[in-house]
Amino acid sequence: MKVNGTPYRSLWWDDQAQALKIIDQRWLPHDFRIQQLDSLADYCTAIRDMHVRGAPLIGATAAYGMAFALRRHPSGTSMDEAYDRLHATRPTAINLRWALDRVKAAITPLEPRDRAAAALALAHEIADEDVEINRCIGLHGLALIRAIAETKPAGEPVRLLTHCNAGWLATVDWGTATSPMYHAHDAGLPLHVWVDETRPRNQGALTAWELGSHGISHSYITDNAGGHLMQQGLVDMVITGTDRTTRRGDVCNKIGTYLKALAARDNDVPFYVALPSPTIDWTVADGLAEIPIEDRPEREITHVQGRDSRGIAMVQVTPDGTPGGNPAFDVTPARLVTGLITERGVCEASEAGLAGLFPEMAAQ
Amino acid sequence: MKVNGTPYRSLWWDDQAQALKIIDQRWLPHDFRIQQLDSLADYCTAIRDMHVRGAPLIGATAAYGMAFALRRHPSGTSMDEAYDRLHATRPTAINLRWALDRVKAAITPLEPRDRAAAALALAHEIADEDVEINRCIGLHGLALIRAIAETKPAGEPVRLLTHCNAGWLATVDWGTATSPMYHAHDAGLPLHVWVDETRPRNQGALTAWELGSHGISHSYITDNAGGHLMQQGLVDMVITGTDRTTRRGDVCNKIGTYLKALAARDNDVPFYVALPSPTIDWTVADGLAEIPIEDRPEREITHVQGRDSRGIAMVQVTPDGTPGGNPAFDVTPARLVTGLITERGVCEASEAGLAGLFPEMAAQ
Repeated sequence: MKVNGTPYRSLWWDDQAQALKIIDQRWLPHDFRIQQLDSLADYCTAIRDMHVRGAPLIGATAAYGMAFALRRHPSGTSMDEAYDRLHATRPTAINLRWALDRVKAAITPLEPRDRAAAALALAHEIADEDVEINRCIGLHGLALIRAIAETKPAGEPVRLLTHCNAGWLATVDWGTATSPMYHAHDAGLPLHVWVDETRPRNQGALTAWELGSHGISHSYITDNAGGHLMQQGLVDMVITGTDRTTRRGDVCNKIGTYLKALAARDNDVPFYVALPSPTIDWTVADGLAEIPIEDRPEREITHVQGRDSRGIAMVQVTPDGTPGGNPAFDVTPARLVTGLITERGVCEASEAGLAGLFPEMAAQ
Repeated sequence: MKVNGTPYRSLWWDDQAQALKIIDQRWLPHDFRIQQLDSLADYCTAIRDMHVRGAPLIGATAAYGMAFALRRHPSGTSMDEAYDRLHATRPTAINLRWALDRVKAAITPLEPRDRAAAALALAHEIADEDVEINRCIGLHGLALIRAIAETKPAGEPVRLLTHCNAGWLATVDWGTATSPMYHAHDAGLPLHVWVDETRPRNQGALTAWELGSHGISHSYITDNAGGHLMQQGLVDMVITGTDRTTRRGDVCNKIGTYLKALAARDNDVPFYVALPSPTIDWTVADGLAEIPIEDRPEREITHVQGRDSRGIAMVQVTPDGTPGGNPAFDVTPARLVTGLITERGVCEASEAGLAGLFPEMAAQ
């Protein structure tokens, strides 16, 4: 998407430098810094230390890391070393493993002289696939936004609310929940987006940065405010992302999503979840009973990062020794979800709805 | 309540110094500082710059300010000057005006030589009345907590959730929502309190400080986490305070309260609101339609205050220029409130419920 008028992806291959460029996201939302990855160690650091974040983006970066290693040396040993080092950066990230396996399986049968070019082409393909999935999600979501816009007087904005950052920074481009917003804006529909702060890590600041950089009207609000805004009739639709969706349509997403779904239901506001089909977990039915929720470090709760006059800084909000509880996700039951926006279209949040769009997956 | 084993009120008259002592709350939760007020200017600064905060505490401080001025000089001129200067500190605070009027009405008919002592006695009375109201709220709330404790195996804590700081720091002692907690703890019932952070001003840090100082087990959580905790069966009861309650039982309280009430209803968790009867607004019926909600400065949203190695510090969380929306309160409809805990007992959140406890007010 655009940053001050210039279109960017969250990573791209620089043909002139013959190297991968990424946005070093550690500095966002305060600073927009581009980094060139010039060694396998650079790739590993970028993934491990979260210069790049978000499952699709991590997977694509790892694929380029394999291609980089094979350009240096096309041997099986070189490939295996790159695989192991990249995989060790964030061993629980499913997309990382998936991307590495995909490259390894495709490259292994090839002659060494063909490997570098093939691996680079495959990395491009993995990145482009992510962009295409998110583009399609955006088009289906655009139709929903357009339908709301048509019920309003001309020029009156459609007011959307989102939680966390399911944005282009977490993918290669478009994002998931944000893709309908970018498509609607680019199609000339007037929008206003309420951006939930999303404590404890304040990913709303990234969403605010994205939307502001692309020129979309928005307001940053506390996680507490959304219910009141819905009561006042100031929200036309909620769109969030998801980390995992069960085959029955329960949605596991950033902590606090469930509270917004409750408020949407209480105020008859449509509540949609945007998801690429790879995040559907066909092995899980009941999200509340079956999905374990990660408890993250207390320090994320008791301290807040931001910027002061000297640069990036951290303050402690609570008294010394305050115990914190930090569940990172919650589960929104399918009954509260108006619909799921996938790359194949919009469906009901139910087993029948998902199976209708993805019969080949549901049948397995 | 206790601070490291020593009982405190949020203000007290020091007989030896013949002066009022307050806790300078600007430094909490990081630093516990006691301040002695030695001039009328000290009183005015303490109220205006929020060394003291919370409606009951502001009222009591102002009453002592009048007493202080009358001890210096018992003339009507002296009293009027004190009234005007104290009233100008926070002109929209209803309790401030109420306390000043009460002192002025009682003192005006007296001989000058009797005024100083009478004013001081009245200030004590105003402070003690607040303590007594909150003590009674606590006893009625204690009965509710005890009933839950009796359904549990011995020693298993009752898990309460609260939002914002309706604590003793905002009153003279006990607090409102916290009073049942202090009573339950002092009665030997095992408790654990989930303390909502309460963005944007993080009053949860004050509640955490209070509970920790008194020795009550608690965890500080983001405002996003409460729904998930209720889904997991980890909350037995919610108790919040209120800024204003309508005669039909709608509750206007700190932004985000409504979201917790929705989650409580969705998970069959009892949701109680603790209130001193002076905060019932008998002139208002429908909270959502009739209560205007204050929009506060953007800076409260975009910046967070805490402590760093140099002392109290502030960081900016959002990108430069991010617009923020900051509604400070929301309205929880009476249908979501299990009961109202008042100084006269617990009632249904309805016109009939409140009129049953306060017939003399309802009839006006």
